[in-house]
Amino acid sequence: MTHDDSIVTAALLVIGDEILSGRTKDKNIGTIAEHLTAIGIRLSEVRVVADVEGDIVDAANALRQRYTYVFTTGGIGPTHDDITADAIAKAFGVGIDVDPRALALLKPHYEKRGIELTAARLRMARIPDGAELIANSVSIAPGFMIGNVIVMAGVPLVMQAMLTDVTARLRTGLKMFSRSLGLDRPEGEIAEIFAAHQAEWPDVSMGSYPSFGDGRFRTELVLRATDEVRLIESLQQLKLKLSIS
Amino acid sequence: MTHDDSIVTAALLVIGDEILSGRTKDKNIGTIAEHLTAIGIRLSEVRVVADVEGDIVDAANALRQRYTYVFTTGGIGPTHDDITADAIAKAFGVGIDVDPRALALLKPHYEKRGIELTAARLRMARIPDGAELIANSVSIAPGFMIGNVIVMAGVPLVMQAMLTDVTARLRTGLKMFSRSLGLDRPEGEIAEIFAAHQAEWPDVSMGSYPSFGDGRFRTELVLRATDEVRLIESLQQLKLKLSIS
Repeated sequence: MTHDDSIVTAALLVIGDEILSGRTKDKNIGTIAEHLTAIGIRLSEVRVVADVEGDIVDAANALRQRYTYVFTTGGIGPTHDDITADAIAKAFGVGIDVDPRALALLKPHYEKRGIELTAARLRMARIPDGAELIANSVSIAPGFMIGNVIVMAGVPLVMQAMLTDVTARLRTGLKMFSRSLGLDRPEGEIAEIFAAHQAEWPDVSMGSYPSFGDGRFRTELVLRATDEVRLIESLQQLKLKLSIS
Repeated sequence: MTHDDSIVTAALLVIGDEILSGRTKDKNIGTIAEHLTAIGIRLSEVRVVADVEGDIVDAANALRQRYTYVFTTGGIGPTHDDITADAIAKAFGVGIDVDPRALALLKPHYEKRGIELTAARLRMARIPDGAELIANSVSIAPGFMIGNVIVMAGVPLVMQAMLTDVTARLRTGLKMFSRSLGLDRPEGEIAEIFAAHQAEWPDVSMGSYPSFGDGRFRTELVLRATDEVRLIESLQQLKLKLSIS
């Protein structure tokens, strides 16, 4: 992991009809968002698209030009609906074929288990030309990184293994620190004070998040900044203004 | 709800720094996806963007031109970071101000409770010119619909109330029915049979979704089609091919 004091951004492209139909509830967005925030990469946009090659190509190309990194999840298994690797190859305008490095991982793994390396399983060794492999400590079939695009599995445990492996190769930037303040009052009561406080601290980003339960509204104020000292100072002053000790 | 046999599509635009930072885990995507599927609207894309006006405007304009409807969640409360209504007005190139219909809802609500209608709370009555209100049975402050864009709150209970209210106004199309088949085997074992089956039934969309737990992979095959009879037929034939009774 190389680190500098710039702002490093990322987008996440979730590929999967199952999320859009509501059948599967996505678990990867939150995991990836937390991980990137923790290491100093700013997740700036998420898109969920269907298993349609043109849609994946268009989204990948739009996002990779705009952000430092693009992470994708889903669509790299052995079945006919797994089209991510081919779509990413097309987005970069490069060839794709069974990769000898990927094959060298899959072959002994299946041989040891007495499982046939069928044409379908070989699909998992298809890697775009020029990509680097990302290790999968759960089930061997690798992800890959090409240019600034990081292609990972959709199964949460496998995605996490790949995210761990690729992290060492990423450039990270300024970390965004955050502090939150839970209030047992609705947003409307603190909105004026909070807006004035935001105006005084332009280098601290302030958000208000209402929640509703047991018939009443509560509010969580979240302050975020790259300078942790300024962050804590602004939080303490906000508490004073809201008469919280 | 008017219904015809066309394909009605939708996109969802989630507005919120808190999702991108990982601090809040989104709960609305799954709810909206399930609801739209059930009523015959095909959710085709989801985007999550930050609380940045330009990003909201760009995403809203890209999506509203491409899909029948665009649903948005988040950013319509009383605090300074609630900028969705203004961004949507800008996307449509229309004015925005305190709306007398919205004010007529908020005023008695707050008066009855002895709560002051502050400038911040009045922000929740700001509605773009030409928009229709969407009722909020939980906490009064309305959402709105302008053109094909439906603007809802981010708090899940409030979002659900608005989604229920607006549903009666939507045009819906062909419903996508689905059936699933859980297998206690990994995808690689059924991939060839499944691909061949897909090729035989081009009007049935077939996806394979692996999961991992207790050290082994399982597979859920999902078949979807607008013709329920064809769907059930294709499922039964698939079961035969996989030797499942």
